Amino acid sequence: MIQRVRGTRDFRPEEMWKRNWLSETLRKIARSYGYREVLTPVIETAELFVTKSGPGVLNEMYSFTDKGGRELSLRPELTAPIIRFFVNDLRDEPLPIKLFSISNCFRYEEPQLGRYREFFHFDVEIIGSDDPDADAELLSMSNSICRSLGLREYSYRIGHVGIVRERLDRAGVDRQKQSEFLHLIDKKRLKEAEELLASSGTRTADVNDIMHICSLKGDVSLLSGLGSAAEQLHETVRIAEACGLGDHTIDLGVVRGLDYYTGMVFEIDYPSLGAEKQICGGGAYRLSHLFGGPDVPCTGFAFGFDRLLIAAEKQTAPPPEPVPDALIIPLPPVDRAYAAALSQELRASGLSVETDLMNRTLSKALKYASSRGARFAVIIGEKEMKEGIVLLRNMSTGEQKGLERERLASAIRA
Amino acid sequence: MIQRVRGTRDFRPEEMWKRNWLSETLRKIARSYGYREVLTPVIETAELFVTKSGPGVLNEMYSFTDKGGRELSLRPELTAPIIRFFVNDLRDEPLPIKLFSISNCFRYEEPQLGRYREFFHFDVEIIGSDDPDADAELLSMSNSICRSLGLREYSYRIGHVGIVRERLDRAGVDRQKQSEFLHLIDKKRLKEAEELLASSGTRTADVNDIMHICSLKGDVSLLSGLGSAAEQLHETVRIAEACGLGDHTIDLGVVRGLDYYTGMVFEIDYPSLGAEKQICGGGAYRLSHLFGGPDVPCTGFAFGFDRLLIAAEKQTAPPPEPVPDALIIPLPPVDRAYAAALSQELRASGLSVETDLMNRTLSKALKYASSRGARFAVIIGEKEMKEGIVLLRNMSTGEQKGLERERLASAIRA
Repeated sequence: MIQRVRGTRDFRPEEMWKRNWLSETLRKIARSYGYREVLTPVIETAELFVTKSGPGVLNEMYSFTDKGGRELSLRPELTAPIIRFFVNDLRDEPLPIKLFSISNCFRYEEPQLGRYREFFHFDVEIIGSDDPDADAELLSMSNSICRSLGLREYSYRIGHVGIVRERLDRAGVDRQKQSEFLHLIDKKRLKEAEELLASSGTRTADVNDIMHICSLKGDVSLLSGLGSAAEQLHETVRIAEACGLGDHTIDLGVVRGLDYYTGMVFEIDYPSLGAEKQICGGGAYRLSHLFGGPDVPCTGFAFGFDRLLIAAEKQTAPPPEPVPDALIIPLPPVDRAYAAALSQELRASGLSVETDLMNRTLSKALKYASSRGARFAVIIGEKEMKEGIVLLRNMSTGEQKGLERERLASAIRA
Repeated sequence: MIQRVRGTRDFRPEEMWKRNWLSETLRKIARSYGYREVLTPVIETAELFVTKSGPGVLNEMYSFTDKGGRELSLRPELTAPIIRFFVNDLRDEPLPIKLFSISNCFRYEEPQLGRYREFFHFDVEIIGSDDPDADAELLSMSNSICRSLGLREYSYRIGHVGIVRERLDRAGVDRQKQSEFLHLIDKKRLKEAEELLASSGTRTADVNDIMHICSLKGDVSLLSGLGSAAEQLHETVRIAEACGLGDHTIDLGVVRGLDYYTGMVFEIDYPSLGAEKQICGGGAYRLSHLFGGPDVPCTGFAFGFDRLLIAAEKQTAPPPEPVPDALIIPLPPVDRAYAAALSQELRASGLSVETDLMNRTLSKALKYASSRGARFAVIIGEKEMKEGIVLLRNMSTGEQKGLERERLASAIRA
């Protein structure tokens, strides 16, 4: 038996119905904030992601050489492609450009529970501003999403890469070491992070100060007196709070581990998901200049679509998938064309109608109608056809009555 | 500048709006026939497509070896993955299983006008039946799609692989030669097709008869006396005609070139698209047993999503993308949090609202509002904030008036 590729999924109809419901819900919210949808290709040059995230990313992506000798990758995320799109084609649009995208991404790592090789992101980007207004809008919009989906007990951890970077700069730590340090902090490998600073000749007082900063957690009051980046973060959170931001903690150990983040960074946890509890992450960054575009401030976030759906399903029942209004069952020797035309007529009046395609006996056709959850069966025998009537059977009550073909649509709709 | 991969596209917001509109239109029609949406992964084993289409397909696909040494491909079409899904997981569902999928596919060939390396299919499959009923339902549904989209002058070419195969069998042409022959017929390389038969020892009378069959074009009457496959096709077309099938020609030279087709085959042309005029193709086939599943009859079609959109746009204007209802413009020293909270309040009442994120002057902010097509600008100066009012400016008339904050939502909605 030919199998699907390990770590990928097929989505059954009942799952696709829920996924489409979530996509539409996210689209509506994003549009209510004035964001517009874009879509970029699944394949990009490997160079795009290496430029953004460093050569290490090659080990985590599906990459291949095309017949022209160009190294291509299946995108591992949507931010770099969207900024590449901006650099290629959207530079003349008035700023800010507010975009979103819902699509699949790929990672090449060992599949684990809740971590797939093909997964989906709902991605939002503001190109042109990382002012507190813009950062706060993203906090506020992600909050609206969680609220609309009925999520409870989600919580924000909010930091600012600039606060730590200011101190690293002042202590004379070079950019390369800063990256390594922030990466370790992101991974909560604090001991190693501290040793890295100490071993690279940073003064002990500075090491202690920096490690202290990275350990700070609490409300906005902890930001007082920590400098201009902290003031900016304070303003961001104040605006978001005025918009009803849910449970949140300032956590300066949140640094998102990638070089391109420059300012506010945040993560949303949904603890009841266990190990895969982080449902959203984002922050302010600069990437465009690395791709050959202007150096514009950007800020954005991505929800893990799959995790968000699991979280949402625990709270909000998506609307049920509609069932067929009717199954049309012509019994031999009734002309199949007569039944097909009747189905077509009912569809034209707005109903969802199936015709028996298996030449089933009446009892088997009724069983199929029942398995499909059809509301009605419309039975046409030879006698009925001659008289221009049909038998309408209510599938939940079993009640059955003859009526003229012309009255069928309204009887089903009633 | 880092570029997108050759032959791929980025979709701008205005294009995505139209694409989503087309997807939703197709979903509604498919559901009205009782079809349900599924989604399969972008990556599959290369084996899947080689089993379906032969080793030649490797030259037309993006393929690569993963780190586990497995040969993978980016799917070139959706039929094989859906049948693989059936074989893996859907075998216990009652037949027929009626599915559709809208997603991206990949081909690795020289990009040409209207032919992209990443392209999109709207794919429909019936698993479990290739009775005339089932084939006719697909003709009828594809016809409903063309009608709903306002397409004019589209036309069907309908054939039946079985009619030619019956004669090839009778003339003693082996399966391998039959495949080569049908492939040549599909490509309209008639001279070569004829020579192939002649050179493989087929009697001249048979060669002439078979070439004659492949040249037949006209209405259903040409099917009389051509055997059981022709009778079946006649019945299919009769049922579809009863459902209002658009302009159609029986064309026995339509054979779809791939081995797995077994019965009715059809193509829809939309001549005003020029060289890329074929917008849909499909037919009855058997694949499941090749993938290790039961040998079930199937029938299906795929529309080229990109071409269908071009065709639809020539006739039906998709509804315009909604514009923001308002842009909120706080003028310094007005508290940005006040403006952000007001925006949030308006969104909660169902409006689509943006806040100025660029700290713009009034005139620049109005220019941005205008570029975004916003219906209203809501201007808040220091004086207005103190008085609890806002200035509401109608962006199309330039009319401007003060009103209480509480009355803003209803004034915008009016």
